[in-house]
Amino acid sequence: MSFKHIISRDNSVFKQLKKLADNSRERRSEGQTLLDGVHLIEAYMATFGEPVMIIIPEGKSSIEATGLIQTLTEIPTIMLPTLMFAELTPVASATGILALVKIPQLTAPEQPKFALMLEDIQDPGNLGSMLRTAAAAGVEAVYLSTSCTDAWSPKALRGGQGAQFVLPIVERANLIAELDNFNGNSYATAMHGESLYAQDLTQATAFVIGNEGAGLRKQTIAAADKSITIPMTESQFGSVESLNAGAAAAICLFERKRQAL
Amino acid sequence: MSFKHIISRDNSVFKQLKKLADNSRERRSEGQTLLDGVHLIEAYMATFGEPVMIIIPEGKSSIEATGLIQTLTEIPTIMLPTLMFAELTPVASATGILALVKIPQLTAPEQPKFALMLEDIQDPGNLGSMLRTAAAAGVEAVYLSTSCTDAWSPKALRGGQGAQFVLPIVERANLIAELDNFNGNSYATAMHGESLYAQDLTQATAFVIGNEGAGLRKQTIAAADKSITIPMTESQFGSVESLNAGAAAAICLFERKRQAL
Repeated sequence: MSFKHIISRDNSVFKQLKKLADNSRERRSEGQTLLDGVHLIEAYMATFGEPVMIIIPEGKSSIEATGLIQTLTEIPTIMLPTLMFAELTPVASATGILALVKIPQLTAPEQPKFALMLEDIQDPGNLGSMLRTAAAAGVEAVYLSTSCTDAWSPKALRGGQGAQFVLPIVERANLIAELDNFNGNSYATAMHGESLYAQDLTQATAFVIGNEGAGLRKQTIAAADKSITIPMTESQFGSVESLNAGAAAAICLFERKRQAL
Repeated sequence: MSFKHIISRDNSVFKQLKKLADNSRERRSEGQTLLDGVHLIEAYMATFGEPVMIIIPEGKSSIEATGLIQTLTEIPTIMLPTLMFAELTPVASATGILALVKIPQLTAPEQPKFALMLEDIQDPGNLGSMLRTAAAAGVEAVYLSTSCTDAWSPKALRGGQGAQFVLPIVERANLIAELDNFNGNSYATAMHGESLYAQDLTQATAFVIGNEGAGLRKQTIAAADKSITIPMTESQFGSVESLNAGAAAAICLFERKRQAL
């Protein structure tokens, strides 16, 4: 295998990779992102083909990474000193391989039967987890409000574990317009709504879930057909105030999955 | 309000607080932990009374923190330089208040009707989220394997949002022994089990959930009455391989909640 060895932070290729790792605007304008680890890279390649570039650290790679690198000898590869490599990864990477890829565009159906709309989700790991849950539940389109964190950041990709490659995602969506357009029943998760479990979810269904701290905006709740609440239990010792957004999404999405089985 | 101003890292009180922030063994041997932020401190005080000590940073506190501090004038309070304060908190704290508290011990029922057993969960935020979900679903006892991350770490407490104060938690549990003792139906989440949705969960129920990467150990699966799987959907674009542990827990626990409503 031949590769280019870059050792200076001033190198233009490294500087560009660093921008892509750190900056959602850069990812959007370039239409590119970085995938961290063998699992994500293989999941991407299964559908979208080869990466633009492979990035590896100096030193010994894992067996999995070495195996993958050996199948990608035609792809431009750069090697970085460990510390520079680490600047491009969201966590200490066990596999020691990154790929620069084009951000894929899966087309959302015009009239999805199962949609998830997310407002103002700030934590990229949470967003990734919710996308993973949505993919597993059979959601056909996810709409992210303009204020949501970027679905293609390294941390969101890590949380998604490949969900971004099988799930049409509409970013910077106007949720109120999407709710108006949605051809089916839309449910905003909120306090003091009807019970989730009292709903017939066998028709086309959209769930709208808001930011953990603040919940959904009033206008967004008003644009949905109905407000629903997940019933919670109070123990002899007291109760928690709410579920986190990821748990709420899992419960709602899989209640629809259960009803539609 | 009077307080002690500590400015040296060599101060014995600061050194002890830092140990408690960083080290689960220290928390266990002392039976103490740190709570970060007004919300957690108030949730603790609602049941367990006053903290042992209040810790505040130099400079201006939030309105909420100031309000709380004014109700706690009898409690020993120390003020730390911002950087030293930050060493004690899991994240940049918006509220700027920490409390040193005794770790409470809620007694688990001898024969819980609803139990959650967690094996080898490594991420403290994930563990906290699962405890929060369990409290909301009405779980009566949570058992954590010896290899689980500490439920009383600052990050786990932050993820739990007060769940640790309303939910009996048995740490360093022998899950196989607990499964043998469990008086009801126990379900291990695993690949290729029966569908979750085919189970009658109206009797006493325990769910066992494993480490995200590796899943449950074979011996633990064998000790449960049944292996169950959450059905997943494959989209036209492919599928994700699995759910994360927090989503799986939410789906299982709230399916029992739904059936028991």
